[in-house]
Amino acid sequence: MPLTPDRVNRQVLLNARPVGFPVDTDFKMVEALVPEPALGQLLIRTIYLSLDPYMRGRMDATASYAKPVQLGSVMEGGTVGEVVASKHDQFEEGELVLSANGWQEYAISDGQGIRKLDPSIAPVSTALGVLGMPGMTAYVGLLEVGELKVGDTVVVSAASGAVGAVVGQIAKIKGHRVVGVAGVQKKCTYVTDELGFDACVSHQSDTLAVDLAAVCPDGIDLYFENVGGKVFDAVLPLLNQFARVPICGRIANYNMTSPPEGPNGVPHLMGLILIRRLRLRGFIVWDHADSAAEFIREVGGWVRSGQLKYREDIVDGLGNAVTAFQGMLRGRNFGKLLVRVSDDKTR
Amino acid sequence: MPLTPDRVNRQVLLNARPVGFPVDTDFKMVEALVPEPALGQLLIRTIYLSLDPYMRGRMDATASYAKPVQLGSVMEGGTVGEVVASKHDQFEEGELVLSANGWQEYAISDGQGIRKLDPSIAPVSTALGVLGMPGMTAYVGLLEVGELKVGDTVVVSAASGAVGAVVGQIAKIKGHRVVGVAGVQKKCTYVTDELGFDACVSHQSDTLAVDLAAVCPDGIDLYFENVGGKVFDAVLPLLNQFARVPICGRIANYNMTSPPEGPNGVPHLMGLILIRRLRLRGFIVWDHADSAAEFIREVGGWVRSGQLKYREDIVDGLGNAVTAFQGMLRGRNFGKLLVRVSDDKTR
Repeated sequence: MPLTPDRVNRQVLLNARPVGFPVDTDFKMVEALVPEPALGQLLIRTIYLSLDPYMRGRMDATASYAKPVQLGSVMEGGTVGEVVASKHDQFEEGELVLSANGWQEYAISDGQGIRKLDPSIAPVSTALGVLGMPGMTAYVGLLEVGELKVGDTVVVSAASGAVGAVVGQIAKIKGHRVVGVAGVQKKCTYVTDELGFDACVSHQSDTLAVDLAAVCPDGIDLYFENVGGKVFDAVLPLLNQFARVPICGRIANYNMTSPPEGPNGVPHLMGLILIRRLRLRGFIVWDHADSAAEFIREVGGWVRSGQLKYREDIVDGLGNAVTAFQGMLRGRNFGKLLVRVSDDKTR
Repeated sequence: MPLTPDRVNRQVLLNARPVGFPVDTDFKMVEALVPEPALGQLLIRTIYLSLDPYMRGRMDATASYAKPVQLGSVMEGGTVGEVVASKHDQFEEGELVLSANGWQEYAISDGQGIRKLDPSIAPVSTALGVLGMPGMTAYVGLLEVGELKVGDTVVVSAASGAVGAVVGQIAKIKGHRVVGVAGVQKKCTYVTDELGFDACVSHQSDTLAVDLAAVCPDGIDLYFENVGGKVFDAVLPLLNQFARVPICGRIANYNMTSPPEGPNGVPHLMGLILIRRLRLRGFIVWDHADSAAEFIREVGGWVRSGQLKYREDIVDGLGNAVTAFQGMLRGRNFGKLLVRVSDDKTR
């Protein structure tokens, strides 16, 4: 059959493993034929592709949480799509589903690991953001891993991002003093004026450490780490005894090709962990799957009531995915970054 | 009254704050008059003075866990002693007590925070070691902070020391694979042959990382940190997913005057914490006082049954305390370091 436009499945492949910052040629857009579902399969048209910082780790040869994406394979990623053909008895054409079809316009599935979405409950895109992996990361990271306690002052980095915005708002709902760290001024203003954080400081400030100390007069009891680098350095001296540091990400370091210059801060860090009885703990949302129902119930309720806000940064067309991903690594997105790969007929 | 020999209270004062390794002139031996107890007080003659690594931190001007020792004050420290005069209705002459009288031959007390010792249950010196602060540090650090789990491979540094030896033996009693890290060969041999660890490697080996990997074929699930420095560096790549690192001490770094040369290992460390979902947690035994009864019951039972062994390194005379303390910082003690300040009539 000819590769007519309506039968083209555009895909973004991992073409080379990035050395440091991912460049355009690390990716390759190809055109394949839209596959036909066999018996027991369904064909899904991607509507939204989620772009997330963790994807940078998957591009490296060394395993991070999961196996690396293989060279020449479609880049992995969470997606919301529409069933356009089904030979699977549990799925029908026109149904909307959450799956992980990656950076491509169409994908075949056997139905495993797919969740149906009801657009009457919430916009389907939220299944990739506030009511999806990033939102649940915030929820379990703050409450389970971070062991949020009465009276905690909470600081969260990447505060306007998909995870950070939820972390801070949950902590505010629960009555805490919450301070965000974000980049440009408009993000800081959004964090305080729209999301209701008590304060927000910019990591672009030359006086970040002083700025942060000024808005944390009682120190920091819980630091939700998304960033690493100089933000972590500014937080460290402010951590109180028994402070908890759930480590969710460290986007400032994802493109490092070699360890930074010295001095070596490890002994100082270990000394502080000891003397202040700190708890640093890395986590990944997948390890907390048994909290999914509680998350959906609680955060879903706050979203519906308007207590918890979210912001999406939507880029149109799979052809813009690479540029959008690069921009995210530079902090240029503003809200949960999504690629609208094809029309969302529910909006 | 004249300062006759039987009325002399020799004391070791902190004379200067050490810069790096503590030198002799950082301390000063003085002779004071043995004080007389007033009503409600008792006079205690020191039998054993405990020397412990944490004391190095107390010599610095910056607070570690507690306030620094003031310049010109008697060095602090746990002691076992005999009541030699009492005007306190709950203490009698001849009773043996655990207290914190510091580096001196006699001390007055109002009875607060003092515990009576029964030499028929265990040698009174053990109240400063296996059945005292170091033993309880091991107990709560391994079981509560380290959350020891079935199947864990346990590694402990300073394995022949007062804390490490107890950590490893408890883990062995509970059925784990246990690997020690110690210094000279005779300590390693003691750890395996006497204490029953499965293996012990020397941190003096040029091939420490390789040696350790060889005896941890299934990686490390719990690393009990007493040392820091190159031992921590060797452990880090071997830590399994979900490994726990209770941080009890870091003697290798106590005398640092400036951060070590680069590269800066913090981003690499934070990356491993994230990807392997590690838990690093500093702790101090005082925060776990409510486990004291359980500790005494359980570890006391093992000591009485001979399942859990201990070794003491006893130095005679307060005049040797400084040299002994310096030696401990260089790893020269072999077992729990004690100064026998005066005769132990119970032995």
